[in-house]
Amino acid sequence: MNSSQPNILVFDPHHAEEYANCVRECGFKAVKAAATYEEAEMFLPGTEIILGWKFPTQLLHTPNALSVRWFQSMGAGVNDLVANSSIPDDILLTRIVDQFGTYISEYIFAYLLHIVKDIPRMRQAQTERNWDSFISDSLAKKTIGVAGLGSIGAETVRKAKAFDMKVHGLSFSGKNAEIVDQHFTANQWKDFVKDLDYLVLTLPLTEKTYHVINREILFSMKPDSCLVNVGRGALIAENDLQSVLEEGHLKAAILDVFETEPLPKDHRFYSMPNVYVTSHLSGPSTTEGVTQFFVDNVIKYLNGETLHGIVDRKRGY
Amino acid sequence: MNSSQPNILVFDPHHAEEYANCVRECGFKAVKAAATYEEAEMFLPGTEIILGWKFPTQLLHTPNALSVRWFQSMGAGVNDLVANSSIPDDILLTRIVDQFGTYISEYIFAYLLHIVKDIPRMRQAQTERNWDSFISDSLAKKTIGVAGLGSIGAETVRKAKAFDMKVHGLSFSGKNAEIVDQHFTANQWKDFVKDLDYLVLTLPLTEKTYHVINREILFSMKPDSCLVNVGRGALIAENDLQSVLEEGHLKAAILDVFETEPLPKDHRFYSMPNVYVTSHLSGPSTTEGVTQFFVDNVIKYLNGETLHGIVDRKRGY
Repeated sequence: MNSSQPNILVFDPHHAEEYANCVRECGFKAVKAAATYEEAEMFLPGTEIILGWKFPTQLLHTPNALSVRWFQSMGAGVNDLVANSSIPDDILLTRIVDQFGTYISEYIFAYLLHIVKDIPRMRQAQTERNWDSFISDSLAKKTIGVAGLGSIGAETVRKAKAFDMKVHGLSFSGKNAEIVDQHFTANQWKDFVKDLDYLVLTLPLTEKTYHVINREILFSMKPDSCLVNVGRGALIAENDLQSVLEEGHLKAAILDVFETEPLPKDHRFYSMPNVYVTSHLSGPSTTEGVTQFFVDNVIKYLNGETLHGIVDRKRGY
Repeated sequence: MNSSQPNILVFDPHHAEEYANCVRECGFKAVKAAATYEEAEMFLPGTEIILGWKFPTQLLHTPNALSVRWFQSMGAGVNDLVANSSIPDDILLTRIVDQFGTYISEYIFAYLLHIVKDIPRMRQAQTERNWDSFISDSLAKKTIGVAGLGSIGAETVRKAKAFDMKVHGLSFSGKNAEIVDQHFTANQWKDFVKDLDYLVLTLPLTEKTYHVINREILFSMKPDSCLVNVGRGALIAENDLQSVLEEGHLKAAILDVFETEPLPKDHRFYSMPNVYVTSHLSGPSTTEGVTQFFVDNVIKYLNGETLHGIVDRKRGY
């Protein structure tokens, strides 16, 4: 099995060749690229490793896929791959980890600063050639709550400290509890959110986190607090969020992920003045980053070492 | 002279009573407030300490001012007070220091992130209900150069490190050289700017820094670099900056200070798409912050201790 040239199949509906070429440039020769169901079906026989994005997982339950040992997802979120046993249990499943902290934390602070410094008011003054020397608020001494203390949450915590914020955190496993000023567990959501100026969701989507942010939790937050979701859309009961915002509760919601993506064109969120809609772009899977992660993992695989980013299907991520 | 109730005059064209009340609440009883030339002239006799903003300094050369021992400016920049000996040499002059680092560094990173993450493109996509999942750039590994390593520069350096930037610094005195990855002195401007992605000016205005950013220095910068000025307007030869930008050099200029303030309504900067004009608001003198600084200094004064923020008139700040 562990030949130095394992058969690798790269699947991506748009950039398969690009990824495949990057992997080949790292010295792997037996790399095929597929962008459609038919191509994947054709190339599967003999494939040992898949690097995939939006892969038609039903193919993994066919005889063509019998040689597949390991599936590396190109993304961080794998709730769709774990759901309904879409990947057979004997195939090792890994996801990208530790790649998104920098990008996502920059996205978060771009918006926190945009709102707290009131850049729109400054831009408006410039348009009107108006000397509007107002005093902005500051992030310093405000309280941020980071739900999920994996690599993205931890990087958010690190930057929040550089802005002299008070940092609270919630994690299901208790992981990284020591990096925050105050730590909460999964049965303390209401206590966790009640003192926050900013609530940032970096959680994976599992049975335990589905719709964890609902009407009750939202109304436990301070009326002028802000909600940021860079995890998964379904962490939030979107209908609840919409009505709570329409009732005038919360200062702003910054949403990069949604229950349905792309967010449907007729969705109310697009036109709500205190909702910032972005297109699931805060943690981009760059070709470079994904390929590097994958190639490092292939080397571990060939050496019989433990892979990085192994998914615990029971836990859900 | 050092009675426990020195005669204090608070001068501010708009908020004199507000400041005076804050000082009174700290236990000082002999506090007068003036908002005009006439009021200042009337209250000066017997005044020992002035807390002032836009004070008519010509009054300090009249017999009414003979009892004045100390002038505390409400701002950080005192180039106007030092120029032309507008304050007699035997009056101690102090400025606010160490109050603006938090606010100004937040302003700087609000704009750096606004530009690097391309928030305008995200806002545009929302307006158009367009799912535009582009990949933003990142501040990480970019090089920022901070000119001026006083308290504002130092705080900017600290936050830049949290964003994993390479940090270069220039200071005239060599002060704080150890906090940056690479340090430059005043005769190394061209070397200093040539590798930067972001140049941030936090310098005071002196004879040595007047128009230090001119056409030659601007063209030594990389074509896609950004310039941020939170120091004083006249650090930059504005006509040079305007023409350099119009020739397509530099990605953006973020300007909070100008040679003439308010920036005249017909100035080209207002309408240039890659110039961000703000109204000298990045480091606001809050009533609370200024009063606290002043009262701490009054206590030092009464105890015969060295005051905080003493201006060296020869150096210019």
